[in-house]
Amino acid sequence: MSANVQNSIMLFGDSLTQGGWEPGMNGFGANLAHRYARKLDVINRGFSGYNTEWGIPVFEQFFATREQQKDLQIVRLLIIWFGANDSCLVQSPQHVPLAKFATNLKYLVNLVQSPESQYYSPNTRIILATPPPVNTYQRKANLDARDPPLLDYAQTVKDIAQEEEVGIIDIWTKMWDAAGHDEQSLSDYLYDGLHLNGAGYQLMYDAVLETIEKTYPELHPDRLEMVFPGWGMIDPNNVVASVQKREQRLV
Amino acid sequence: MSANVQNSIMLFGDSLTQGGWEPGMNGFGANLAHRYARKLDVINRGFSGYNTEWGIPVFEQFFATREQQKDLQIVRLLIIWFGANDSCLVQSPQHVPLAKFATNLKYLVNLVQSPESQYYSPNTRIILATPPPVNTYQRKANLDARDPPLLDYAQTVKDIAQEEEVGIIDIWTKMWDAAGHDEQSLSDYLYDGLHLNGAGYQLMYDAVLETIEKTYPELHPDRLEMVFPGWGMIDPNNVVASVQKREQRLV
Repeated sequence: MSANVQNSIMLFGDSLTQGGWEPGMNGFGANLAHRYARKLDVINRGFSGYNTEWGIPVFEQFFATREQQKDLQIVRLLIIWFGANDSCLVQSPQHVPLAKFATNLKYLVNLVQSPESQYYSPNTRIILATPPPVNTYQRKANLDARDPPLLDYAQTVKDIAQEEEVGIIDIWTKMWDAAGHDEQSLSDYLYDGLHLNGAGYQLMYDAVLETIEKTYPELHPDRLEMVFPGWGMIDPNNVVASVQKREQRLV
Repeated sequence: MSANVQNSIMLFGDSLTQGGWEPGMNGFGANLAHRYARKLDVINRGFSGYNTEWGIPVFEQFFATREQQKDLQIVRLLIIWFGANDSCLVQSPQHVPLAKFATNLKYLVNLVQSPESQYYSPNTRIILATPPPVNTYQRKANLDARDPPLLDYAQTVKDIAQEEEVGIIDIWTKMWDAAGHDEQSLSDYLYDGLHLNGAGYQLMYDAVLETIEKTYPELHPDRLEMVFPGWGMIDPNNVVASVQKREQRLV
């Protein structure tokens, strides 16, 4: 990005990720970018309509190879959030069978974590996020297009996170609990039965920070110093020395 | 950023820039990031409280040198928005005299545009933004701290943009006109007399796109294709070939 500063958090997923900056939607991406301002850039790699099958060849183009990483800032955290499209009913071209969905997620994790991978990035921490529940009442016009519960896909994401020992954001359960286990009340969090509204993105934002705190506390914004100092720290008589970049410690 | 895709827009300035992602504030940075999603990343290089004098040595650390640029994505557009702190009254450590402010802005433009500069980036377009007007009624508690009209600083930014032949966002005039040339009505656009509220950031967002359209139309979001195709373009029988990255044309 023609900037040799600063490291980043990358949000990779489908429309739920891409929409995370949408004006007036309290998007979790824009809010994380604000929370991490001057600490880590937050990068939108959301691809509306994509499933894991299509996401993989795209990831292999935008994520830096080991060779490229030498000259680039580090993705300190990668949040992978798929499933909303993979779980479409079989007649949709977006559908990815559950077993293949699982294989794809594992493949993505290993692309980054396996020392044999050409995308191996040992300083990148990974968090998987489950798809949220779907409100079939809101989506009655589209009932045939998606498999309502999505629970199988959410459970699979949780299983893989455990197996691969990466972080997990279980937004399925967070939202289901918040809705009082009442499908119709999911409309408090989903504007069309599938996509998150402001309250839904608030749940997601809170869940992201909760998982970071629990799994990778060194990446919590409260524990990262700003790359460049606050203006009150600047010595007007010694400006250059007092605005030197800090090396954010890698743990 | 450990990603070899995609190019960016960099917003460089003080708290007016840093606050451009603040939740619930309709921030121009977050909204531009949404508008340019999958086309250009929008990078927050806002430094609350900074003036041009302190901004320069920071810029020289975060902006890539010619040598570094070879391995990095391109900053296609750099928006420089200073003046709100530079124009403080002389007793503030943030104050930068008008002539020095002018020199500093020219220095920044030349860092990027001069073939002799080690930061020379010929594919980076530049837009300067004026500081907005200040509402001295709202800021009566701080009346001594800032020079109210700011008009001198705004005019200087306009002069330099013309002289250096770069784009200009005259948010001073936009906001003054929107307030009906009535200082008290500036409270419709400034929440504390200095910092923009949602309506103020809407003016700024619209002004950014208007200037891009006028000065660098090839960078308008409507004229940039997505780096990776929309999902409807994907051939399920030929996925890898159909999700190839497009090279965004440089004009």
